[in-house]
Amino acid sequence: MSTEKLRVAIVGATGIAGQQFIDALRQHPWFTITALAASERSAGKSYGEALRDAKSGAVRWWCADAPPPEVTRLPVVAGSDFDAETVDVVFSAIEADPARELEPRWAAKRPVISAASAFRYEADVPLLIPGVNLAHAPLIRVQQKNRGWRGFVAPIPNCTTTGLVIALAPLHRHAVVEKVAMTSMQGISGAGRSPGVVGLDIIDNVVPYIPGEEEKVAKETSKIFGALGRDTIDPAAIVTSATCTRAAVLEGHTEAVSVSLARACSPADAAAAMREYRGGIEDLPSAPKNMITVHDDPFRPQPRLDRDADGGMTTSVGRLRPDALWTHGLRFVLVSHNTKFGAAKGAVLLAEALRRDGYL
Amino acid sequence: MSTEKLRVAIVGATGIAGQQFIDALRQHPWFTITALAASERSAGKSYGEALRDAKSGAVRWWCADAPPPEVTRLPVVAGSDFDAETVDVVFSAIEADPARELEPRWAAKRPVISAASAFRYEADVPLLIPGVNLAHAPLIRVQQKNRGWRGFVAPIPNCTTTGLVIALAPLHRHAVVEKVAMTSMQGISGAGRSPGVVGLDIIDNVVPYIPGEEEKVAKETSKIFGALGRDTIDPAAIVTSATCTRAAVLEGHTEAVSVSLARACSPADAAAAMREYRGGIEDLPSAPKNMITVHDDPFRPQPRLDRDADGGMTTSVGRLRPDALWTHGLRFVLVSHNTKFGAAKGAVLLAEALRRDGYL
Amino acid sequence: MSTEKLRVAIVGATGIAGQQFIDALRQHPWFTITALAASERSAGKSYGEALRDAKSGAVRWWCADAPPPEVTRLPVVAGSDFDAETVDVVFSAIEADPARELEPRWAAKRPVISAASAFRYEADVPLLIPGVNLAHAPLIRVQQKNRGWRGFVAPIPNCTTTGLVIALAPLHRHAVVEKVAMTSMQGISGAGRSPGVVGLDIIDNVVPYIPGEEEKVAKETSKIFGALGRDTIDPAAIVTSATCTRAAVLEGHTEAVSVSLARACSPADAAAAMREYRGGIEDLPSAPKNMITVHDDPFRPQPRLDRDADGGMTTSVGRLRPDALWTHGLRFVLVSHNTKFGAAKGAVLLAEALRRDGYL
Amino acid sequence: MSTEKLRVAIVGATGIAGQQFIDALRQHPWFTITALAASERSAGKSYGEALRDAKSGAVRWWCADAPPPEVTRLPVVAGSDFDAETVDVVFSAIEADPARELEPRWAAKRPVISAASAFRYEADVPLLIPGVNLAHAPLIRVQQKNRGWRGFVAPIPNCTTTGLVIALAPLHRHAVVEKVAMTSMQGISGAGRSPGVVGLDIIDNVVPYIPGEEEKVAKETSKIFGALGRDTIDPAAIVTSATCTRAAVLEGHTEAVSVSLARACSPADAAAAMREYRGGIEDLPSAPKNMITVHDDPFRPQPRLDRDADGGMTTSVGRLRPDALWTHGLRFVLVSHNTKFGAAKGAVLLAEALRRDGYL
Repeated sequence: MSTEKLRVAIVGATGIAGQQFIDALRQHPWFTITALAASERSAGKSYGEALRDAKSGAVRWWCADAPPPEVTRLPVVAGSDFDAETVDVVFSAIEADPARELEPRWAAKRPVISAASAFRYEADVPLLIPGVNLAHAPLIRVQQKNRGWRGFVAPIPNCTTTGLVIALAPLHRHAVVEKVAMTSMQGISGAGRSPGVVGLDIIDNVVPYIPGEEEKVAKETSKIFGALGRDTIDPAAIVTSATCTRAAVLEGHTEAVSVSLARACSPADAAAAMREYRGGIEDLPSAPKNMITVHDDPFRPQPRLDRDADGGMTTSVGRLRPDALWTHGLRFVLVSHNTKFGAAKGAVLLAEALRRDGYL
Repeated sequence: MSTEKLRVAIVGATGIAGQQFIDALRQHPWFTITALAASERSAGKSYGEALRDAKSGAVRWWCADAPPPEVTRLPVVAGSDFDAETVDVVFSAIEADPARELEPRWAAKRPVISAASAFRYEADVPLLIPGVNLAHAPLIRVQQKNRGWRGFVAPIPNCTTTGLVIALAPLHRHAVVEKVAMTSMQGISGAGRSPGVVGLDIIDNVVPYIPGEEEKVAKETSKIFGALGRDTIDPAAIVTSATCTRAAVLEGHTEAVSVSLARACSPADAAAAMREYRGGIEDLPSAPKNMITVHDDPFRPQPRLDRDADGGMTTSVGRLRPDALWTHGLRFVLVSHNTKFGAAKGAVLLAEALRRDGYL
Repeated sequence: MSTEKLRVAIVGATGIAGQQFIDALRQHPWFTITALAASERSAGKSYGEALRDAKSGAVRWWCADAPPPEVTRLPVVAGSDFDAETVDVVFSAIEADPARELEPRWAAKRPVISAASAFRYEADVPLLIPGVNLAHAPLIRVQQKNRGWRGFVAPIPNCTTTGLVIALAPLHRHAVVEKVAMTSMQGISGAGRSPGVVGLDIIDNVVPYIPGEEEKVAKETSKIFGALGRDTIDPAAIVTSATCTRAAVLEGHTEAVSVSLARACSPADAAAAMREYRGGIEDLPSAPKNMITVHDDPFRPQPRLDRDADGGMTTSVGRLRPDALWTHGLRFVLVSHNTKFGAAKGAVLLAEALRRDGYL
Repeated sequence: MSTEKLRVAIVGATGIAGQQFIDALRQHPWFTITALAASERSAGKSYGEALRDAKSGAVRWWCADAPPPEVTRLPVVAGSDFDAETVDVVFSAIEADPARELEPRWAAKRPVISAASAFRYEADVPLLIPGVNLAHAPLIRVQQKNRGWRGFVAPIPNCTTTGLVIALAPLHRHAVVEKVAMTSMQGISGAGRSPGVVGLDIIDNVVPYIPGEEEKVAKETSKIFGALGRDTIDPAAIVTSATCTRAAVLEGHTEAVSVSLARACSPADAAAAMREYRGGIEDLPSAPKNMITVHDDPFRPQPRLDRDADGGMTTSVGRLRPDALWTHGLRFVLVSHNTKFGAAKGAVLLAEALRRDGYL
């Protein structure tokens, strides 16, 4: 692996998701942001200017720490004018609809790591979570051949899938997951981009529906746990049934999970399997110390207390107990940081893994 | 039925639960509050004085409308000194521990309608929800005989059980409920009495555990759907597996439910069964127009928008859809008002039913 | 006054402000909604369809009670195509920029009662609050003459001004208000129309700035307490200095006020003056029983507990105490419902007053 | 100054305030926690056990990072049994009432740095804020002499005073502060100790009263800016008039301030004076880089975004503008971290200053 830093672009840079990429790449040892793209409205401005609301003067920046000065000075180009050849890797933080059109243009020339759902379900596109299914990465070569691209598109899963799959991975390895019933209570920062969830809708409330989310979680869980075939992924035979809700929580997705396993697995065994779970990514700069943290205190995990554990990169599990619904059943609660491992920082971790493994 | 109003006492009158009884009995056509009991600290004061915090001067009253003047003028006696013979019915809003000791004393003389869990699981005590299982009421006579009481104890179920059982009732009648997976997102007003959930614990957060709640829901669901035997209830063979969480919601419990049925039941059939469900309580003053309101808008029900529907006495259901986890599976979300039907107002409704049916 | 109901139109009908007009006119004895106008996007749809978000299927309706069926069936026309002659009165719930262009068109033909700020500061436009300064209404005749309009524009003040001026009115009458220092903690429902305040900006937060709000409050307070001259209002010599902030409150504006008076006025005298204050509007259908409710409990008023008092039409005052900053100083806190008296319902009340007084 | 670490005790160690002391002393270069005291209920337990709620099993710990293992292993003694001679310094996090009795006992032997209000207003007790009025520290010697104590009591001010006084300090030095009108919107973590503000009271709400707070702010501001006399502090002639409210904010106090100065001071001059303000504490381990951070963005400071700036030790100011209420008036908003500089971490900073200056 070369020691030179790769030049990266962030497209969709002014939205919440794009800002989180900027945050996740702060002083990154392997990557340097050298280009930013956003909507027409921002084109031609410096990034710092583009963040400023023209009417009110407010700086629309949602991360805890201010954007780095070397980034606010960068010029913003329109996404449709962006030339991928000016960088080594593209991080895409745009919506699914434009992604469908724009990501192939960039992927023709350069690797695109994408938070958008546009290509997640294509046959020749792996849905990679470092620490879980990097074994699917070779499908990238099939994709390049199929499409005649020099680069490729590697999307990350939906943020709600990510925490679920990480928590299930050691159980699946240990006792084979067959059925999953899940209810999520999701933080509002994951509600896509601006303007996001309106305060009037969420204070003193729960919103019981997030369009498309439940189908994504079901489909993605099967694909991620699937087997790499010759030129596609054979999905795992897991039935995932979810109700995805929005809670009055800023960040962090909480998921109450019930799982039916093929083989017996006590709560103690499950906790041990989770604690011992290593994903082979310990050497990557953004990797957490532990993929999973297991709490004994029954009042944990809580999104406010646990979302930021290990930089938002560990999945916190608690309330592990038997579930009488199933012959071999377990029930637990997890908290996963939707905009860290579940989005930008997870995408950066994926880029790290792909660089280590020779894809970038 | 006599046209004279019954004299009722509220014990535990200064706590949140007691206040809700006072609210539920405002201008009630059948009952008049004539006595109030609370802790030693309040004894000897008028109710209005007892509500005032000695140190800060704050009036500790949590219902939307102020307490009626005829109630604030009533004297408060200590619960342990309260003589049940001075009234016709006792509404008990005290904690389980004192209830275990005090409710039998009162029940020896007068009917006690209780929000406490102390006697819910006793063999000769029915767990009644008007509109669902009033057929269990005759067990009251067994209880009176067993214990030599002139009165009796009739507890209401846990507030989280109430909404669940009402929503399941038409499905159970129609297609037999076998298994229930439920995740609740509960309002903080149900967190027992003072001080309740601390702001620091719940703002921007979800708390994934409510001690004892999940076991109560499982046990109570089976008992309520059970069959009245000779001198007890034979519980129904329903496996209920719940994760009960606390959300940043003032009032209203939201429950995401997955149910396995013995027979096929489409979402449309389920919605029809719910909409048509009548519990035989239409004639009672506190009864809702409909036991269940079914929403087609997938973003409903929401606790803030739906908890107060029909005076907090209808259970709002939405997101009815098939559930692939089960051969005959359904998935839905419900909202139930935890301190209306789920507590004081539900207890008043029960008193109305018991009066109508000759038990009071 | 004719006993026939006036036909009214609501323009800007799909936004939050417009919805509140629909809510405020529910079963109104004097007015019937017969026309609705909104943006191009909604034109040609029924109102019920126009409320539905095309992408997600969500019904975007923010009032507690569902819109009346006779209203959801009405067709929506584009604001720019709306013909004011089809109705007797126009309620305008549009933004200031389009109002500047469209309201004169309608006012040429019909009276326009407007929640927009576009015309508030024009010399020949009174800024009326029923109960406070209806004596300024004759300026409407000047306006009609000046502009050659058959109708007129009568804007209501900013929602933050409304509560402040109502609370100050009896003090001003009694002891002459000279200086006002005010800090507001405003509910998010007043943050203009869709999308309003984003959840990510307000949960666990205070936003210390609302563009333009402070200047509006200062200017409007002087104008409302001004003297009606020959063809304009001579503003009162009151210095108002405000800091307007946004709090994590759904509805209701809380204002901490310090006032310097020309003459001595004890807190007890101030409370008496406020309690006795009558605005000569007792006969109007939307009028509150009392313009002002004064609390003795130092923990009141609170927006959640007091905003809905008397249908959101009374201004709640508490914490009346001397203020050592001034020779004759008073300090107090008020809560006013920003979307009831402070917006749609206040505009309806104004229409009622203008009808009673012969302007409609 | 000796290089050996001082042994410190925390009394009131299990409450929120005490926990914050433990947090503030994490890996402190000068102090090591060697003793913990709390209520009778905790006595005899290890600190880790004492944090666990006996009934629910919950760990009652409110800081972001878990307590250090070397602290959870320490035994807890009852406050009334605590022997101050076993340590070098006592940090007191107990309530005012017990402080009045217990702090003198400890102060007879050892320096007591206290967050309680019990001794703040005594004539021979300075009210010190490092960076503002360390010049008052010599009053400690008077106190020791007066009372025959080997140690002393050095209380920190109320958390609401702290931010206010820091922001005013450069203005006072530059242009002399004469009058201050302030409205606070305070975070709930400052609401004393367990149980703190109840969720039902604060979600979707503002509470307009905090008993005693306004008087404390007024009195303390004058004392802190006072002149050190022979054996007491002559308070400054500043009139401070405050309305203190509680907002739905976890941590951080926001204050809207209007100040009347003796001399002209433009907003630009005020900003410069604040930015240049140095308190002579740059060498202390807990000192912020800048006493005050001034924002140009009018939407700042916000408590969620700014409370943690510089470890919660900088006071963030924004919205600096002229105030027409006064001849030489300024208006601004500040955010101060109530449990960092405003409480435990501020007390630790004071201990650092007193050690440096030879009082410990």
